[in-house]
Formats: sequence, structure tokens, C-alpha cells
Amino acid sequence: MKKIKNPTACIIIIGNEILSGRTLDTNKNYLCKELTAIGIDVLEARVVKDDEKQIISSVNELRKKYNYVFTTGGIGPTHDDITSNSIAKAFKVKLIKNKKALNILKKFYNLNNLNQARQKMAYLPKGSELLYNPITKAAGFRIKNVYVMAGIPEIMKAMFLNIVKKLKRGLPEVSKTLLFNLPESSIAEHLSNIQNNYKEVEIGSYPFMSGKKRGVNIVLRSQNKKLIKKVEKEILKKIKKN
Amino acid sequence: MKKIKNPTACIIIIGNEILSGRTLDTNKNYLCKELTAIGIDVLEARVVKDDEKQIISSVNELRKKYNYVFTTGGIGPTHDDITSNSIAKAFKVKLIKNKKALNILKKFYNLNNLNQARQKMAYLPKGSELLYNPITKAAGFRIKNVYVMAGIPEIMKAMFLNIVKKLKRGLPEVSKTLLFNLPESSIAEHLSNIQNNYKEVEIGSYPFMSGKKRGVNIVLRSQNKKLIKKVEKEILKKIKKN
Repeated sequence: MKKIKNPTACIIIIGNEILSGRTLDTNKNYLCKELTAIGIDVLEARVVKDDEKQIISSVNELRKKYNYVFTTGGIGPTHDDITSNSIAKAFKVKLIKNKKALNILKKFYNLNNLNQARQKMAYLPKGSELLYNPITKAAGFRIKNVYVMAGIPEIMKAMFLNIVKKLKRGLPEVSKTLLFNLPESSIAEHLSNIQNNYKEVEIGSYPFMSGKKRGVNIVLRSQNKKLIKKVEKEILKKIKKN
Repeated sequence: MKKIKNPTACIIIIGNEILSGRTLDTNKNYLCKELTAIGIDVLEARVVKDDEKQIISSVNELRKKYNYVFTTGGIGPTHDDITSNSIAKAFKVKLIKNKKALNILKKFYNLNNLNQARQKMAYLPKGSELLYNPITKAAGFRIKNVYVMAGIPEIMKAMFLNIVKKLKRGLPEVSKTLLFNLPESSIAEHLSNIQNNYKEVEIGSYPFMSGKKRGVNIVLRSQNKKLIKKVEKEILKKIKKN
């Protein structure tokens, strides 16, 4: 079985609050899990500030490098939400009033409540496709291979559930975790030998500590289920589970 | 009061398990918090795979861009731990047996137990300074402005606590959070006006949802405590807390 080349992706988390440590970023982990599950390989992630230059340069670098780029954060109504404008600049297109996005907001807020800040959320880069937001209605958008989503986890997830149907999927890797209550350094040689014999299976060794207890999770990953079974057997032959 | 320019930093999280979504990365958040608290501005973070090319290119790009680079992950004894070797290559120096690192391991394991995999952890880029690991003894290292730490959170923290004394500190920003049970779009205009009048205070608006409840945390950040007080007053004048 030849390894199938999966689509690739990069995630860009945009927000000062992540880099100051105020907010624990959970969006990245959600997206990594979901994308991996449908055979899209996440090869990189970045966290950048709400900074126009940084957003422009990272988007322009990464959209050429990977099949998909997913961003979260900075598309709300306040002065510090500069993602849409920055991405328009990255693509050298204008930020224009998107009629569809505006109509959705008009329905949600009644006309008297559609203040300037709320209208701002209908300004999207020219050529964007809307990403529907079932919760607060202010849409995200896609421009070429860049998907621009909200930062609030609940809204980001709702947007992603709509996007996911349209993505080109790959062949997901199967994974199998073997837990050993041993220091990884005591089994490293065996693992290395087995890895050398089975290049098609990625053998990851992830030690952990919990209080005084130490152990290691050996994670096998491959598109080839049978080969994972084989490698599992090889490992269990060499290393006794306790 | 003129804004003092703080040292800058970037964090590189190295590990396939983060990008597959298997592991929720908490190291980044810890480092962001600790660095922010001592006046070192974290301007970027990256997550890369256990991939030599990716590690080399990101380290070489970022060590020139920022005062400090902190990496976590990939310095253990197994075949998938390739960080030390990759960083040696980034700096174009050899990976050599570090006597000090080896002696620490010799004391910890008795000689019969110092297998090849454990000895591997004493190989560090030429010119490195050891970063002491009080828990499992295998040292991290510093080369120039790049600090290379373990991925296991408990060990990474222990290493960082030793590093932190030696870092050049800046003037930490003071932060003040104001919670409003209002949608941020209803107060965006006030915030924008106040931000325009007080450039020295960063006003961040972070909406949240918890069940059906929606609200927003307004976070004020500045090196100038007095100015934060002033902005807080301005905000509370315009926006009623409920």
C-alpha cells in the first residue's frame, strides 16, 4: 500500500490575548483534531498579534505553502478587530460592503440596532465567499484557500462544521496508542530498531509524568491499518506491558 | 511617561502530537504568561513538526527577528527526538558529547543503566550552555539567544525557573479587566473613541459566551498605571456596568 499524499493545512491564531497568556488557546487543538480526522495534514500553526504587518506577511507566506490556511480571531465589531482588513490587503483587494453579509445582519438586528460597529462586520475582502455563522450571524469568509473564522470557540466550531463539508479530504491515518509504565529511555533502542524496519508507520514516543508516576505513550500512526497491527505486535514482543 | 521598549520573544513548540491534535499544548500558555509578567513581549509563537527542515528554517528565521527564542519538545532519548541535532545544524555547529551533561546522567543512572539512548541526551550543539533539569536530569541547553527545553510540562517549567533569573527583563505592562454583560457590538464605538484618545493604553475587547449568557471582557494594558486608571474611568463613564 503506497502512502497517499494528503492535502496540507496551516492554522493561524490571531490575537494579542493568546500571546499575553491571558487566554488559553483551544481553537488550534480543535482544528488540528478535526482536520487530522478527515485526512488533512496540519503541518504548521502560528500565533500572531493583532498586527496588520504580521497578519499580512504570515497569510501571504503560508497560503502559498499549504493547500489550506485557517485563521481564527479578529473579525468582530471592535477597533482591535483588524483581520478582515489585513487579509484584504494581503490579497491586494478592497474591503467592500458585502450585501449578503449585510442582509443577514439586517435580519438579525432590527434596523435601528444595526449600528456602525455592527455594519463593520459586513465589510469583507472583495471576492470572498461567506462562511455562515449560525450563532451571532456575523459571517466569516473564504478568499481563495484562506478560511477566516471567529475567535470565540463556539462560533469558530459552528463555522467550521459548515466549511468541513466542502474541504478536499485525504486518507486519515489510523492511530493506536500503547501505554507503558516505563521510562522511555529504557525502550528507546527497541523503538528505534522497529521504526527503521517499518518506515510507513510513524512511531511517536510521548513520555508523561503524573505525580511520581512516569510512563510513556507510544503512538503508532499510518494510513495502513494492517501495518499498525504488525508494528504493535513487534513492540509487544520486545517490551512487556506491566 | 514614555513607553519603554521591552525585549521580544518567540516560542517554538516542536512536536507532531500537537499538530495531530492528540496533545493540548499548555507550554505555550505558561511561557506567554511568565514572559509577559517580567516585561518580555511575546510577539509570535509557532508549532512545527518533528521535522529537521522545519526546525532549522524556523529557528534561523526567528532567532534573528526576536531577542529570545524558546523551544519546547524533542530533546528526549528516542528516535523521534531530533531537536538537538536540528538546532546544531541550524547554527552550523557539530553535535558533541557534552561532558558536564554526561556526568550529570552518570550520577543519576548508575553506569550499567546508562544505555545508548540515555547517553544520546548528553549530545548537544557545540558551544551550548546547559539548562539544568532537576527532575529527570537530562539537560536542556542554550545556544546564543535560543533556549531549548523539554516538552513535558513539569520538566519545561523546572528548566524555565532556572532560566528566568538570567533573562533581561523589561517593564511589565499592568493590566485591568472590566467585565460587561453586554454584546461588544453595543459598546464598540465608545471603545474606539477612547482608544483614539489614549494611544498608550491597549484596549482589547474579548467577547465570550457561556451557555446563553454573552458578555465581553475589556482588557486594558499599559506600562503606565495611572493612565489605565484614567481609561477605566472614561469607559465606566460611557458604559454602565450591570
